[in-house]
Formats: sequence, C-alpha cells, structure tokens
Amino acid sequence: MRATVMYAAGDVRVETVPDATIEDPTDAVVRVTRASICGSDLWPYATMEPSETGQSMGHEAIGVVEEIGAEVGQVRRGDLVVMPFAFSDGTCEFCRHGLHTACVHVGFFGNNGENGAQAEALRVPYADGTLYKLPVSADDALLPSLLTLSDVMGTGHHAAMCAGVGPGKIAAVVGDGAVGLCGVIAAKRLGAEQIIILGRHEDRTTLARELGATEVVAERGEQAVSRVKELTGGHGAHSVLECVGLDQSEATAIQITRPGGKVGRVGVPQSASMPNSQTAFYANVTISGGPAPVRAYIDELLPDVLEGRIEPGRVLDRTVGLDDVPDGYQAMADRNALKVMVTP
Amino acid sequence: MRATVMYAAGDVRVETVPDATIEDPTDAVVRVTRASICGSDLWPYATMEPSETGQSMGHEAIGVVEEIGAEVGQVRRGDLVVMPFAFSDGTCEFCRHGLHTACVHVGFFGNNGENGAQAEALRVPYADGTLYKLPVSADDALLPSLLTLSDVMGTGHHAAMCAGVGPGKIAAVVGDGAVGLCGVIAAKRLGAEQIIILGRHEDRTTLARELGATEVVAERGEQAVSRVKELTGGHGAHSVLECVGLDQSEATAIQITRPGGKVGRVGVPQSASMPNSQTAFYANVTISGGPAPVRAYIDELLPDVLEGRIEPGRVLDRTVGLDDVPDGYQAMADRNALKVMVTP
Repeated sequence: MRATVMYAAGDVRVETVPDATIEDPTDAVVRVTRASICGSDLWPYATMEPSETGQSMGHEAIGVVEEIGAEVGQVRRGDLVVMPFAFSDGTCEFCRHGLHTACVHVGFFGNNGENGAQAEALRVPYADGTLYKLPVSADDALLPSLLTLSDVMGTGHHAAMCAGVGPGKIAAVVGDGAVGLCGVIAAKRLGAEQIIILGRHEDRTTLARELGATEVVAERGEQAVSRVKELTGGHGAHSVLECVGLDQSEATAIQITRPGGKVGRVGVPQSASMPNSQTAFYANVTISGGPAPVRAYIDELLPDVLEGRIEPGRVLDRTVGLDDVPDGYQAMADRNALKVMVTP
Repeated sequence: MRATVMYAAGDVRVETVPDATIEDPTDAVVRVTRASICGSDLWPYATMEPSETGQSMGHEAIGVVEEIGAEVGQVRRGDLVVMPFAFSDGTCEFCRHGLHTACVHVGFFGNNGENGAQAEALRVPYADGTLYKLPVSADDALLPSLLTLSDVMGTGHHAAMCAGVGPGKIAAVVGDGAVGLCGVIAAKRLGAEQIIILGRHEDRTTLARELGATEVVAERGEQAVSRVKELTGGHGAHSVLECVGLDQSEATAIQITRPGGKVGRVGVPQSASMPNSQTAFYANVTISGGPAPVRAYIDELLPDVLEGRIEPGRVLDRTVGLDDVPDGYQAMADRNALKVMVTP
C-alpha cells in the first residue's frame, strides 16, 4: 500500500510500504477515506533529524473498517469511523474519566514508530476504545467537518473547556491556525459573550470573524496585551485559549487573563519551563490543558456537526491526493494553505 | 507606639514609631492583641537590601477596633476582629467573586510601605471590606486558631481548593511548614481519603500525622516522586498542595500529580518561570493557585474553628512579647520554632 513517510526535516515521501495488518486481537485495519495534515506535523517537517527508517505520518482520519481482530466487538467491517489522533483502550481508569490521552495503553498515530493515517490504510490498536462509528455515508458532504473531530475541533474544544468558557464569559484565543479557529467555534458554542482572536494572518482572522470572533488583535507581545486589556474593561479575558505553544504566546496568554481567570493550553509547549508563571501566580490565574481527549468529546460535538450548527471543516482549505501530500506539507509550511485534507 | 521594623536582612528592630491613625475615612485603627511571624517574613529576613526607612513588618493579626473613619459602618469600636493579610474593599468585582487578593484596591500589610501587624496597633485601610468580626472574647483559648484565619489556615485551604481536594481523592502536600500543615488540615476537612505529606522535619511531620496526614515522604527530588507513585498505585495524587514555592518543590509537585490532576500552589514562586511545565502539559495537569483570598474563606472556616473540628492554632509553637519579635524571627530562621505568635 501507499503511505507517507518522513525521513528528515523537509523530506516527506509517499512510498509503497507493507500492507497494514492485524497484529493484536484488539486491532482493526482502517482503509482511509479522508486524512489531513496537522500543524503539529510541521514541527518534525521543520526540525526532524535524518532517519534511515523514517516515520510514518498522519494522525487524523476518517475511514472504513476493513478488518478486525478476534477481540474487537464494538466496530465491524464496513463501518465508517472517525479515528482520534491517539489510540486508547477505553476501559482504564483514565479513559473512564474521559482522559483518553492518558490511557495506560495510549499511543499517538504517526509518532514514535506508530503507523500514520496519511496512507491508504493503517492499523488501529485498541479499535473498540479508539474508533467512533459515524452515522453517515462515506461520501457525505459533512466529511471535512467530521474529520476535524479526530483532532483540531476536539482540541479547540478542550482549550475552551480547560479555559472555563461559558455563557457571559470573555474569551481570547491566542493563535489563528486551525486549532485557534476551532477554539473560536468552541468558545462561541459554549456561550462566550465576547471572543477576541489574536492573530496576524488576515485571511484567517477574517474566517475567525465568520466563525464567531467579535474582535481581532493583530499586535504581538506587550502591544497585544494592552489591546486586549482595552477591549476587556482593563482586566483581561476570563478564558484564554492558548493554541500555539511558543514561549511568547504562552507568556501573552497569561498576561491577557484576568485575575482568577483560566488559560486552556493545547499548543505543544516549546520549552520545558513556562514563562510568566509567577505572573499567573500573583493573579491566581489557572493554567490547564494538554493533549485533548478528543475521543471523549465526539459524543458531545457530533450532533452539532451533523445538524450544521458548527462547521469546523471550513478550516480545511485545500485538498490533495495521497501522492501530493508532500506538496501539502510545503503549502502549510509556506502558509499558503491553512490546513490540507488528503483523499487517499 | 511600638512596632517591628526591618532594615535589612537579619536586622529586625522593635522601635517607637508614630501612633497609627485614621488617614482615610474608610480606615480603622486596630489595637493588636495577637500577631504572628509568617514564613514569608523570612524571605526579606534572608535577602532584604539595607533600607534607611525600613519596612514595617507583620500581616497576621487579631485585635480590637480602637478607632474608625467616618465612612466605616460594618465594624465598630471595641469589636474583636481578625485581619486578613491583604486589605480589600469588599465591593469591587473581584471581591464580589471571592478573589479579595485581586481587589482593585488591594494592598498587603507589612509590604511595600504598608504598615504591619507586629506592632501595638496598625492602620487598616478599607476596614469594612477587610476586617472580620469575631464572636468570641479577646482572651478566648481559641485565639491561636482564629489567628491562623488571617493567613496560613486560609492559605492551606486555598491550596486544597485549587488542587480540587474532595471526598475519595488522594492529596499530597509538598512542604511541612505552617502552610503545609494547614494544607493537611484543609485536605482532611474536605474529605481526602489519603493525605501524603512531603517533608523532612520529623517534629513537623509527626504533627502532620496528628492533623490528618496518612503517610510521610521524607525523600526529595526523584526519590520523592518514586515514593509517592508507590503510595498511589503508580499514578500519583489527584490533588497536590504546593506549599513551598522553590523550583524544586514546584517541579516535584507537578511530577507527583496524576494525569488530569491538579496542583494548588500557594508558595510564592522562587522563579518567574515554572519548571516541568511541559510535563504538566503532557499529563493534562492543571496548575492553579496564588495569594489566598483568606477574607473569602473565613465564613466557611470559622465555624469549624469555633466548634473545635479543626485546630490550626497548633502550628503556633512559640509565643513572644513584642520586644522579643527579633528573637522570634531568628528562631524561625534557625528552624527552632515552626511559627511564632506575638502578644503585643
């Protein structure tokens, strides 16, 4: 079968690899009908040390179950499923509490040797706990939005939940990438009264306004902080969604949170230490977040997608076939595309 | 009147100073009947740059209202009151939400030129919002425990609240100082099933056991982390109360929190950046806390003190008169005393 393999920074290839097969009785093999390239794939694309074996890429997918192991009982051959970016057993104490990304058997597709979804097919460990059957057909027009439930929409929702967004709250979203835009959707969906997006890409902030942002702050650093304070009666936002992960954006997120407010962070942190943490302390600002348990959120988000109340698929602004995945990486790295969908 | 003034690291003097007086119509003058020395007073005692004017010291007190300004209506002359370590107007939006330490008029006694409580009397700004009338007499045996409501008991409670302590939860308390011990009391009071204290002073950890700790971890660093993991089924505590503020203790606090758990930090952070913040991210650990809004907590904690269900006054293990306050500082710095009460 064909699959995407990264060998070094900037070196992504689509190659013929051994077919995905059942290895454990809890596995399924899923034939991918839609995949996508994630902002987090751009980190290795920028920095990966050369590797002879390479890393199979991709962690966002919708597909059809092609084969199941002997112990798989919740999904069947022919089911159309969405695949969260992490696999999880669905039964451990962390899964039972809705934190599937801390599952005792957790693994991340397209990372650390796990097979990836930018491929014709892939092996899905713990299929029963991981895959979510979709009540639509494989050519449904909703597929782009449903695909975002595998990562970016659930991740934006996690940021909003961790930041305590709710009716009447002022939310600020740091970052205008796909996750930030999904954060805007999530903040609106949860009832935020005011939604400020911090971003400087005009096409993206324009889309953010269409998705629910009430104000755009294009400044950075101290100027961004001042501008958000001006827009929020001098005190900052109740709920700040940190959707970037750079030191600068983490620092800004803390500075624009009002005393007693919350930062929900979903951008993978650039550094081991968090800047401005002392500032957070003096203002009793809570810092929460991490890898989103998107599997847990599908139940809640799916009806809104199916009934058209949210349209997170709008963040997918380009579609490529499998052979053109390398062009998709480059387009995202060049910021010519916001987020690329793949149709293997 | 006599008051405690610090002029430099190690240089604390009890001197005659101008009498406390009403300056603003919202002020009260309180004659101090009990004060105490706080662990946080030991920071300037260790590090203060020499100052010609000095800093009036002390932020924990019980006293009798001696004089009130024209606009003070909630407290009256002769009232016995407890004074939180911060003054607050009681009416701004942050006070109304219970975050008095973010009051738009907040100030901290014995800091930044504000007068202190290790004195015969002191001026209390925003007396109506700050002072809390006690329903006991001035010589009540409960005074030591009531005195802790001005800081350490409310601060330990804040750590526990921020850490999400509740029935059935496993709590860990980092630090065996007065705040850590009050954190143990708070964790027990909120229903924690298991309470692990991390500390290496045997007299203090013995007291911690009497106050509700179920296990003591005397190790530090990686060894402490391993030990807590052993005691908690391999995953760490749900709720970690960080009651020190050093980089090492903040790092340990994060490492001993289970995925999805919470750190409630009340130790003033040593550094601007928080170590191990990336570790917290990957485990979806929430970091919360800051200067405790102890004024907000008195309503809740007072009945338990009055009815003897909690005895936070046990952390006060030495009493000195006002003239011996400098000896009290030295005894705490030498760890010969846990916490010193002052009877002016």
